[in-house]
Amino acid sequence: MAERVYKEISGGVTAAKGYVSHAVSCGIKNPAVRRLDLALVYSTEPTTSAGVFTTNRVKAACVRVSKQHMRKGNVRAIIANSGNANACTGRAGIEVARRECSMVSQELGIQPNEVAVCSTGVIGLPMPMLRIEPRIAELCRGLAAGRGHEVASAIITSDTREKEVAVSFHVGGKEVRIGSCCKGAGMISPCMATMICMVCTDAAVERKALQEALREGVELSFNRITIDGDMSTNDTCLILANGASGVKLAPGRSGWKRFCEALQYVLLGQAQRIVQDGERVTKYVTVRVKGAPDRAEAKRVAEGVAKSSLVKSSWNGGDPNWGRIIHAVGYAGRRVREEKVDIDIAGKPACRGGVQADTPSDELRALVQADSFEILINLNLGKSEYTVYTTDLSPEYVDFNRSEYAYWNQAKQDGLTR
Amino acid sequence: MAERVYKEISGGVTAAKGYVSHAVSCGIKNPAVRRLDLALVYSTEPTTSAGVFTTNRVKAACVRVSKQHMRKGNVRAIIANSGNANACTGRAGIEVARRECSMVSQELGIQPNEVAVCSTGVIGLPMPMLRIEPRIAELCRGLAAGRGHEVASAIITSDTREKEVAVSFHVGGKEVRIGSCCKGAGMISPCMATMICMVCTDAAVERKALQEALREGVELSFNRITIDGDMSTNDTCLILANGASGVKLAPGRSGWKRFCEALQYVLLGQAQRIVQDGERVTKYVTVRVKGAPDRAEAKRVAEGVAKSSLVKSSWNGGDPNWGRIIHAVGYAGRRVREEKVDIDIAGKPACRGGVQADTPSDELRALVQADSFEILINLNLGKSEYTVYTTDLSPEYVDFNRSEYAYWNQAKQDGLTR
Repeated sequence: MAERVYKEISGGVTAAKGYVSHAVSCGIKNPAVRRLDLALVYSTEPTTSAGVFTTNRVKAACVRVSKQHMRKGNVRAIIANSGNANACTGRAGIEVARRECSMVSQELGIQPNEVAVCSTGVIGLPMPMLRIEPRIAELCRGLAAGRGHEVASAIITSDTREKEVAVSFHVGGKEVRIGSCCKGAGMISPCMATMICMVCTDAAVERKALQEALREGVELSFNRITIDGDMSTNDTCLILANGASGVKLAPGRSGWKRFCEALQYVLLGQAQRIVQDGERVTKYVTVRVKGAPDRAEAKRVAEGVAKSSLVKSSWNGGDPNWGRIIHAVGYAGRRVREEKVDIDIAGKPACRGGVQADTPSDELRALVQADSFEILINLNLGKSEYTVYTTDLSPEYVDFNRSEYAYWNQAKQDGLTR
Repeated sequence: MAERVYKEISGGVTAAKGYVSHAVSCGIKNPAVRRLDLALVYSTEPTTSAGVFTTNRVKAACVRVSKQHMRKGNVRAIIANSGNANACTGRAGIEVARRECSMVSQELGIQPNEVAVCSTGVIGLPMPMLRIEPRIAELCRGLAAGRGHEVASAIITSDTREKEVAVSFHVGGKEVRIGSCCKGAGMISPCMATMICMVCTDAAVERKALQEALREGVELSFNRITIDGDMSTNDTCLILANGASGVKLAPGRSGWKRFCEALQYVLLGQAQRIVQDGERVTKYVTVRVKGAPDRAEAKRVAEGVAKSSLVKSSWNGGDPNWGRIIHAVGYAGRRVREEKVDIDIAGKPACRGGVQADTPSDELRALVQADSFEILINLNLGKSEYTVYTTDLSPEYVDFNRSEYAYWNQAKQDGLTR
């Protein structure tokens, strides 16, 4: 990789010029715990915008409404909440999402379709609008620069930490910034994860080019991660570009490649943070497939290994079990030839030509005790590659996800669903 | 369903006339624990035979050799071991599997390709032929009627119990029997499970018809089950038919439908026993999809729900979480329309038209505390159906599968790989 032309900066989602934010606590999850759960990000300048959304056939109301708004034009405000996904909530859910956008737009003096809406939390529970609605005016009026970290806090759910990445680089002597925040820890599967990612840049980028840059960036980041193989109803990645840096960027022109590289760095950084913060898991594992006859086969094999319960369980136990890896290679691939498969675990040969390699098991085992390692699978059938970032599967993950029932029931009793 | 024309009988895999068996303990897993681990089933009469095998691209040596032998003609003996899968063992593994068949054939005075071989256990470890070879003569010489239960014991691994199903029915006043034994508890996924199933009937059935009856039976049984979504390298289902009952059966002739129904009952009974004995799991769940636009969509949705880690975790917690079920319906299906999806949990409406139904959550929750229940998903888009039998995902499953390393390492130190 060439030397990086960008550097990391602080400031999270509002690191770029011309962005303000605010977050409040509505008690969406639990009125007794005053944690931030409703956030707003706003560009003080007009923007272009782009978005990539879940491909789940069951889509949250917020995803449906944001997609509609983005088809009509550009958004320059994003309202987001945690604690309730506004998914499987029917027409009432759509009306709630629209009402949130409309109230924000009235306060800010913009059009309703200039507002996007994101929700994350429990599926199937009506949104507690009795708690959200009275706070929207305050949310809008408190908008200020330098408060990006509050947004990162307000959108997380089972995450154990905020996820912020921001970078800057120079084009023609002027500084361009890209800021972001992100959430996600469970229900994480390729295309895409249960995640919200907001990216704000002060470059000026034409809408179509922005969409293409985002699409490509997501393809190489959020579409390459899996924790539990479960694709969410709410995945949303949005980018706003407001031109406040005074730098105009376009494909083929000076600085474009730099912008795409920096955006890629931000998105991949966020995707990796999601995997590293996976619910109750203990390992960060890179599954790299090479030597595939085509990209589709490389992808099938990488995702198959990354999603195998038995492979993931063995990683949790620090067991360098190449037999389970090759068994998943065999059922996930369509053109695999067993006798050609090589597997390296953490840089050491574990399998050569479909049978055990010479590396002593103890040596492999010591390497798999690490928090992070790479599995390299060479199919030796061609030149295509694919990489997936994933985790182990832990008894604690299953235990953590055994029941949302107590929360659900409590929310109903507290009247939190209105 | 019409009244059953067959009745359950005892005797397991040797319940039918003209079959003998024997099992011995070679110490394949652990010389200190004298458990049965090598078994032989033999028809005293010539047979026709058929088999269905794993579609994993990585196939155990025993699968490759058995397939070759069955292409050449009919098999009338099956040698099977537990403790070592003879998978990913390269050319040496093939030679071992061939040597087992050749030694058995010499003892029995038949051709080597009249013997099929099955192995189940750890992948990637050489077969301990030093322990197996000296016992083969004894294995063959001890063949006797009424010892079917020993075979059922010898082939199980992480199973907690033997799996035997046998039935009899009458055709033209004569009794026909179908006996079987089976193993499987982990690495269980549709098409097919990590399982060995041996079926022996005393009907006479022409080879091609036998293959078709077996293929259809497996499609409706072993291809409909999943525990952990991991397809094995060793799956094998074999049927032998020796005509010892004096009854000839053929498609279109009297008794054929009865035979197919009885075979279906045996195979489905075995498939369900595998799921009920899933490694460290606590629930037996039937996922039935109806109203699909075509069978492929019904299958995608049923398998998607049955394989979802989050859905399975919620079942473990006794949580009637329809939100997670519909999220899996949405990512597994291609033509799902959210607003049409109905979900019943244990016979009660949980979701109607994509949103929560009226059944009180407490009532649903009580139903999901049971050891066994049905999830019925109606896509309301057509007339196709598909059913999958599955389990929850438990913290104990993950814990149980964390490490085979200790076993592996011990086996090497004990010289068990020779």
